[in-house]
Amino acid sequence: MQTALSDLAAGMAGSRVLITGGLGFIGSNLARVLVEAGAHVTVVDALVSGHGGLRFNLAGMEDEVQVHIGDVRDESLMRQVVSRTDYVFNLSGQTSHLDSMHDPYTDLEQNCRGPIAVLEACRHAAPDAKVVFASTRQVYGRPKYLPVDEGHPLQPVDVNGIHKLAGEAYHLLYRDVYGLHVVVFRLTNTYGPRMRVRDARQTFLGVWIRQLLCGEPLEVWGGTQQRDLNYVDDVLRAFLLAADRRDGDGEVFNLGDERAITLQDLAELLITIHGRGEYRVISFPPERKAIDIGDFYADYAKIRRTLAWEPSVPLEDGLERTLAFFAEHGPRYWHGPE
Amino acid sequence: MQTALSDLAAGMAGSRVLITGGLGFIGSNLARVLVEAGAHVTVVDALVSGHGGLRFNLAGMEDEVQVHIGDVRDESLMRQVVSRTDYVFNLSGQTSHLDSMHDPYTDLEQNCRGPIAVLEACRHAAPDAKVVFASTRQVYGRPKYLPVDEGHPLQPVDVNGIHKLAGEAYHLLYRDVYGLHVVVFRLTNTYGPRMRVRDARQTFLGVWIRQLLCGEPLEVWGGTQQRDLNYVDDVLRAFLLAADRRDGDGEVFNLGDERAITLQDLAELLITIHGRGEYRVISFPPERKAIDIGDFYADYAKIRRTLAWEPSVPLEDGLERTLAFFAEHGPRYWHGPE
Repeated sequence: MQTALSDLAAGMAGSRVLITGGLGFIGSNLARVLVEAGAHVTVVDALVSGHGGLRFNLAGMEDEVQVHIGDVRDESLMRQVVSRTDYVFNLSGQTSHLDSMHDPYTDLEQNCRGPIAVLEACRHAAPDAKVVFASTRQVYGRPKYLPVDEGHPLQPVDVNGIHKLAGEAYHLLYRDVYGLHVVVFRLTNTYGPRMRVRDARQTFLGVWIRQLLCGEPLEVWGGTQQRDLNYVDDVLRAFLLAADRRDGDGEVFNLGDERAITLQDLAELLITIHGRGEYRVISFPPERKAIDIGDFYADYAKIRRTLAWEPSVPLEDGLERTLAFFAEHGPRYWHGPE
Repeated sequence: MQTALSDLAAGMAGSRVLITGGLGFIGSNLARVLVEAGAHVTVVDALVSGHGGLRFNLAGMEDEVQVHIGDVRDESLMRQVVSRTDYVFNLSGQTSHLDSMHDPYTDLEQNCRGPIAVLEACRHAAPDAKVVFASTRQVYGRPKYLPVDEGHPLQPVDVNGIHKLAGEAYHLLYRDVYGLHVVVFRLTNTYGPRMRVRDARQTFLGVWIRQLLCGEPLEVWGGTQQRDLNYVDDVLRAFLLAADRRDGDGEVFNLGDERAITLQDLAELLITIHGRGEYRVISFPPERKAIDIGDFYADYAKIRRTLAWEPSVPLEDGLERTLAFFAEHGPRYWHGPE
């Protein structure tokens, strides 16, 4: 039996938490659950266009979360907000693989300079805080075997993967050299309420949800690639488990799901849950093909062993909750200001 | 029998060569040998204080090398100088491990943004050029076994190692995605004429040479760590071998030497060759200890197998030539403007 997210969050009641990228998909879900549990939550988000940050993600909680619209690269801001913080969830960043190829410099700023600035602030102003860093399965590149465990070679196939790998390395380095408490997660496809659905910058699944709810056919690129997915609450459970315990300190953990599904089967499942819709398979645009990783699903035995974490939300349930959220709030996400 | 450096350079007579960091230690030695062989050499160097670039390094060749004092991050400059180039030796960068910890942002600019800018220029303006990238053994971190081969885990213990690893990854990525021709070298301690001797930013050996020639005792930190060393001409031979052939395309090669020597033995050898001098062993300053890698020597079987490269200059000969150079030109290196 997996510990519920709300129970894990309850353990942080009264503590001070900083979330970078806290208006984004994962960050805002984390902020909401921690506020409900009675934590003091501060959020830094630059609301960079295209990155997924949205004020609406914290709707109804405006008075309970301290929100700084600012850049994590602003070290004086960071030192100020990190001071006396117990937990730092370092979630800001650029997630689009394709954008990282078109503009490697911006990806460098967001995914390298950003994390360095957060860590520099932590070592000066919050040396005892636990820092949780969200990395990505993209650091592995094209799988040489499946499922992919943490010992798999690290050969990223895009600039984003190179920079996220550097981001991980900074965290581990600052632990070794300065004694910070850090834990690194390599996320696979994460989905849920408040995800970016305007385009494919976070996942293909986001776009599909928008297409489905707008009555458009889902665009399935390729279709036979296998993927595993985590519902956002399960990712948050992993973050909170690791934040609260020493066992995971200095470790790198895959997240993942035992169930791998082809994109085509996933599209069909989504349509079945929604009750209507259609999809069309289209061939891969060449610039995407060049950085595609083929099949991917993760081996998460290490975190199961170390922190007793397993995904608790089956894919069907997660998709249903996600569709319900966007059925209610969708237009806020596909129209309106970012 | 190893092919002589001048014979390898002769193969590049008439070709157009760009060297970034071409006023630095390795870059200037490369420029000199290529000019002598009849290549058209262009150099870009920002003469960043502390990085080893020195106008004097190309003394006597001012009319034969086109020198741009400029920054590789200036993409319009780079596109201009890279245009119609046959070979790009991408050697600019920040080398000090300690500086990278004190100022990770500058290291990020020099060792990440710099290489990206060079590669972006190449893919737009010189897609057929061969690009040779100088990386470092520092990407391995503390050896888990010796000698260290290319399959050794990559766990850098300082910011410089993290960024040089990213630099390698950009080169390999631009090959996979854009079809550039690239080869990556992981250099061990490289020494020779025109090395930086003002401080330990390039190697401890540089400082020792200055101390020895100035009649000061050599400062040996620790002393029992083992290192392998390459004379600069041998490194250049590897660069030229790889530049000229397709076998090494897309590969990462260690350089190294079969002979590993403790720092203390090396200090004694240097003093013996010089005929006088003394050294004192001092304990490691804590901030250096935190990022020290202990013993290191490289397995260079891969390049021996692939390109038939082996070091050809024995340590005694290399040290003698280096001391002779600095005995003549030393004051230019330890006094005067950088």
